[in-house]
Amino acid sequence: MVRVAVLGATGYTALELLKILLRHPDVEITALTSRQEGRPHVAAIHPQLTGRIDCELESLDTSAVASRADCVFSCLPHGASAAAVAPLIDAGVKVVDFSADYRLDDPQAYAAWYGRDHADPQRMATTVYGLPELFREQIAESGLVANPGCYPTSVILALAPLLKRELIDHRDLVVDSKSGVSGAGRTPMLTTHFAECNESISAYNVGRHRHTPEIEQVLSGVCDRRTQVIFTPHLVPMDRGILSTCYARPVGAPSEEEVLAALNEFYSQEPFVRVVEHLPGTKDSLGTNFCDITARCVRERVLVFSCLDNLLKGASGAAVQNFNLMHGFPETTALD
Amino acid sequence: MVRVAVLGATGYTALELLKILLRHPDVEITALTSRQEGRPHVAAIHPQLTGRIDCELESLDTSAVASRADCVFSCLPHGASAAAVAPLIDAGVKVVDFSADYRLDDPQAYAAWYGRDHADPQRMATTVYGLPELFREQIAESGLVANPGCYPTSVILALAPLLKRELIDHRDLVVDSKSGVSGAGRTPMLTTHFAECNESISAYNVGRHRHTPEIEQVLSGVCDRRTQVIFTPHLVPMDRGILSTCYARPVGAPSEEEVLAALNEFYSQEPFVRVVEHLPGTKDSLGTNFCDITARCVRERVLVFSCLDNLLKGASGAAVQNFNLMHGFPETTALD
Amino acid sequence: MVRVAVLGATGYTALELLKILLRHPDVEITALTSRQEGRPHVAAIHPQLTGRIDCELESLDTSAVASRADCVFSCLPHGASAAAVAPLIDAGVKVVDFSADYRLDDPQAYAAWYGRDHADPQRMATTVYGLPELFREQIAESGLVANPGCYPTSVILALAPLLKRELIDHRDLVVDSKSGVSGAGRTPMLTTHFAECNESISAYNVGRHRHTPEIEQVLSGVCDRRTQVIFTPHLVPMDRGILSTCYARPVGAPSEEEVLAALNEFYSQEPFVRVVEHLPGTKDSLGTNFCDITARCVRERVLVFSCLDNLLKGASGAAVQNFNLMHGFPETTALD
Amino acid sequence: MVRVAVLGATGYTALELLKILLRHPDVEITALTSRQEGRPHVAAIHPQLTGRIDCELESLDTSAVASRADCVFSCLPHGASAAAVAPLIDAGVKVVDFSADYRLDDPQAYAAWYGRDHADPQRMATTVYGLPELFREQIAESGLVANPGCYPTSVILALAPLLKRELIDHRDLVVDSKSGVSGAGRTPMLTTHFAECNESISAYNVGRHRHTPEIEQVLSGVCDRRTQVIFTPHLVPMDRGILSTCYARPVGAPSEEEVLAALNEFYSQEPFVRVVEHLPGTKDSLGTNFCDITARCVRERVLVFSCLDNLLKGASGAAVQNFNLMHGFPETTALD
Repeated sequence: MVRVAVLGATGYTALELLKILLRHPDVEITALTSRQEGRPHVAAIHPQLTGRIDCELESLDTSAVASRADCVFSCLPHGASAAAVAPLIDAGVKVVDFSADYRLDDPQAYAAWYGRDHADPQRMATTVYGLPELFREQIAESGLVANPGCYPTSVILALAPLLKRELIDHRDLVVDSKSGVSGAGRTPMLTTHFAECNESISAYNVGRHRHTPEIEQVLSGVCDRRTQVIFTPHLVPMDRGILSTCYARPVGAPSEEEVLAALNEFYSQEPFVRVVEHLPGTKDSLGTNFCDITARCVRERVLVFSCLDNLLKGASGAAVQNFNLMHGFPETTALD
Repeated sequence: MVRVAVLGATGYTALELLKILLRHPDVEITALTSRQEGRPHVAAIHPQLTGRIDCELESLDTSAVASRADCVFSCLPHGASAAAVAPLIDAGVKVVDFSADYRLDDPQAYAAWYGRDHADPQRMATTVYGLPELFREQIAESGLVANPGCYPTSVILALAPLLKRELIDHRDLVVDSKSGVSGAGRTPMLTTHFAECNESISAYNVGRHRHTPEIEQVLSGVCDRRTQVIFTPHLVPMDRGILSTCYARPVGAPSEEEVLAALNEFYSQEPFVRVVEHLPGTKDSLGTNFCDITARCVRERVLVFSCLDNLLKGASGAAVQNFNLMHGFPETTALD
Repeated sequence: MVRVAVLGATGYTALELLKILLRHPDVEITALTSRQEGRPHVAAIHPQLTGRIDCELESLDTSAVASRADCVFSCLPHGASAAAVAPLIDAGVKVVDFSADYRLDDPQAYAAWYGRDHADPQRMATTVYGLPELFREQIAESGLVANPGCYPTSVILALAPLLKRELIDHRDLVVDSKSGVSGAGRTPMLTTHFAECNESISAYNVGRHRHTPEIEQVLSGVCDRRTQVIFTPHLVPMDRGILSTCYARPVGAPSEEEVLAALNEFYSQEPFVRVVEHLPGTKDSLGTNFCDITARCVRERVLVFSCLDNLLKGASGAAVQNFNLMHGFPETTALD
Repeated sequence: MVRVAVLGATGYTALELLKILLRHPDVEITALTSRQEGRPHVAAIHPQLTGRIDCELESLDTSAVASRADCVFSCLPHGASAAAVAPLIDAGVKVVDFSADYRLDDPQAYAAWYGRDHADPQRMATTVYGLPELFREQIAESGLVANPGCYPTSVILALAPLLKRELIDHRDLVVDSKSGVSGAGRTPMLTTHFAECNESISAYNVGRHRHTPEIEQVLSGVCDRRTQVIFTPHLVPMDRGILSTCYARPVGAPSEEEVLAALNEFYSQEPFVRVVEHLPGTKDSLGTNFCDITARCVRERVLVFSCLDNLLKGASGAAVQNFNLMHGFPETTALD
């Protein structure tokens, strides 16, 4: 039985994480932290958990967490997460970090995109990026895993196989992503106020979304060439789900069948990537840890479509997948 | 041309009001107020108004407003509204007040339900309740009109004709109301955060919603008997619209035809109440100033269904209807 | 391992059922039937099941089903279901019937409400109503269970404890229910066309919804008195979830605490009923087998609020709960 | 007073058209046609029109329509529309055609994309495309106007100014469009069934949407070069609204300011195009005849964002704009 703590347990990713962990036969939840006043029961914050877990939200310091948990999931915001994670790693606790803090390798890139210096720069370059489809072996041997961003997971899974096989050009990549509103977190803001974003779609953070360098870093590594992506996120009036529509230039003139075959071959052994022939809707993977991918050739372009649930394969499902790998459990335990 | 000011112009009712006023041939918008920093253009707050109105949001005192406007629509919150309205009335400016401040007649009831003393108690009992279907003549002669609440409009229009005709019992009234989320205003809160209230319906403020005394006061007046209502509001995942389902005991044994005939007769000359035979959906009146009403007899009950757009017939449409009456314009001007 | 067949596997309840059964450690899915042309893969109809189940939809006769399955879930429409179920029971196969066919005890009531004679009238009075909270022992001993309707489950769970304890009057019950659109099934119709029902709420089937006699029969049995209910269903623009707001007259003058205590006591050992203090939203039980209940006393009324997921506790979750009881598995297996 | 008929008056575009025409001071609605059985009142089909128009849906032949109307709006499907429109034109009636029949110039392209021969090929090349921002003078002199498709309006308005000014490359255009569900029409289908498309986003008709040749034809004309577009439409869970995100290669290295200035200059006199600085949401133009456009320069790309209401500026609002031009009324009459 692995004793598990969740840092920053008041948000949506933490809620989904807890729902998965409650199903996990080898997990005991031993601590939940937050900055909430008092020690509220977790069900007072997440009514969905009423009667399913008896645990309070506590304001705990590192040593208290380290004494109670073998593995920590950090759902803290970037900046705060590295500050909390570093001493846990030093104390020998395993960590899956949901924040962006350990995703980028380069402290300068981090400072440029996140507007602050990194609290634990020396671990940046060596921390594994928690995408099992690309880095399974390294994850299994790691004590710290950087859980990927929701958009990057959808984009990297769509493009990596075709870049690796050199079926598409790494210099001309346009990604138009659409996300449900839960991706914006649980803090009330005007942009995510129901009467503002319902019945409306809009682009946001054009040219400056922080998932851009993360996508580029991983794809550059995959094809061993400096890759740039035009990445445009959109807010869609639905709770959950990401659809990334990726526009690439083919190298050579692969047929649609060849592109699909390359995707199928790459993911043939993967438990959570489904290469499909139809155009997937985000609802097909809603509530699951699957990522659905298909491709089309249109004129001189290869279009790749990728769908997933941003809170599961895009966050908490992936985190448990990483956790399972890190602890030697079957990778699909507690996931479907 | 009537010079019009809008106090508290940053919310949804103010936006809908401005859209109607821009169509009104006899209105000139001369001032918009808010507590916003600086003097932002109104379109910076309401992008829907871009290119349609050239006006800034200003922080103005009473005398400045009074010097610029012949008529003021106050969209200020209760408490603040009476404080702002009273000196305007004294200065001879006509006012339509969207807040609850002048709806109740009784200062003690106000204090009990709103948790504060009224700033202008002596005008409470004499201010007309701005429901033209019941108080058209008084509205036409008034300098101050209390614009009704959204729920009360739907409930009073449903029940008043049957209470007046003594077809239903005033002692046994259950009202189950459902509202879109815009009714909760524009200030971000967790309860109206998209990912919280989307895909969910819940009751709120059970037994203590402030529209209860307003409904009871007007219905009591209609049938000249002290009327109590069990009023339960619900939050529905949609932008706009109210459906009130009203359960009453019949007096005698009226048939469904007789009940519908009573409604039809009562509203036969009304421009904005439609007595229909089908069960109306809120979408039928979305974007209009109509209230749709029908009735059914089920066992020993009379059920009355009432739909309207909470921001129009439930707020800004009604306000302009009142404005038209107060100024002698055709009642339907700028409304549909 | 129980070999399981699902009849009529193309709808939403069948999809949710299959997702649960895929998690069930003691179930092998051996047959799925439909009237679809050809033998389509089930994932061609339900893309969510891609890669999770390898099974075709077949048009099978009774003997073929009986030879392949130990237990059958019938998701066929009423009328068709009894015709298919009766010979399966005769052949010794256990059945959970999702249709209304075996819910009513009285063939004449069935004929009156469903407009047709029953195909298997002699089994009607003896078939157990599959609500474990009331009929657990009988379900465990049954070969045929009538799975309850979604609305009746929400209403009966809300009112049964208070009727049984004689805290409310069985002669004055008003139930105002609100349901997500999946409750209307998967056949495209204008009323469930997105652009018609989105952003709208309306009542439907007022005074004549077929769940009325089912609610009345079970509640009459609970309190041993002929009980009538004014039941009004509404269609809400969301996928899933039912909220029933029940208005009852108290007997005596129980306090809110006493009412809540009675509910708590009645459900203290139940795995899937949560008596809560807050006003539940349907999202709290979305994707789970829970029913959330609370109560409020308002003037001379007792209000009971009940929320569940219409496809789970209101259909497929309850069906697996019944299946578990019928086969001696822990009641909560595969459910959360 | 212009006597107006609407052919095929049962759909969403006809409903929005009628709502606008009812506000038009110079229009008398004299005939509505459909293939509905009997002669239902139009409000029986469109409850929103209850009490606002007294008109039946009739099955009328050409001569009957020609005798009653000076101008006809055809909301018939492609194929049927040309067959009905041609004799009306011959009879001297003016026509605004909502279908695609007269949008393309080339009968062969029409046959290729629409899978049928055109019923009136000789008028194809000479019919004006009803986009006032590009073809105002020709529209004003025409007896037949091809009302543009909803997607093409959003895309052409976004790209035409930049192509004309040679700020972007006509050979590399990617358009990722997102539309609300009303764009799919009113006929119930599984893809537009609420419980299927709600809470989901997906691409459809990739590489083969019929608006593609229409976009290319008009843009090719604008820049006098054969232009190809990769056009990918998506279905978004909302009633109305289109957002087109357009990715273009700059010619030279225009700054974002220069691109915005070019858009501003092009549309400086247009009543219904708003060049804005913020990233528009579709809700900003919901219920209006506006198209909101902005641009961003990201790395070596120019991104243009364009929003409109698919039923208004994308259909019925544009149709009335054309009608006004054709009849010499102020272009904005009845529109806002």
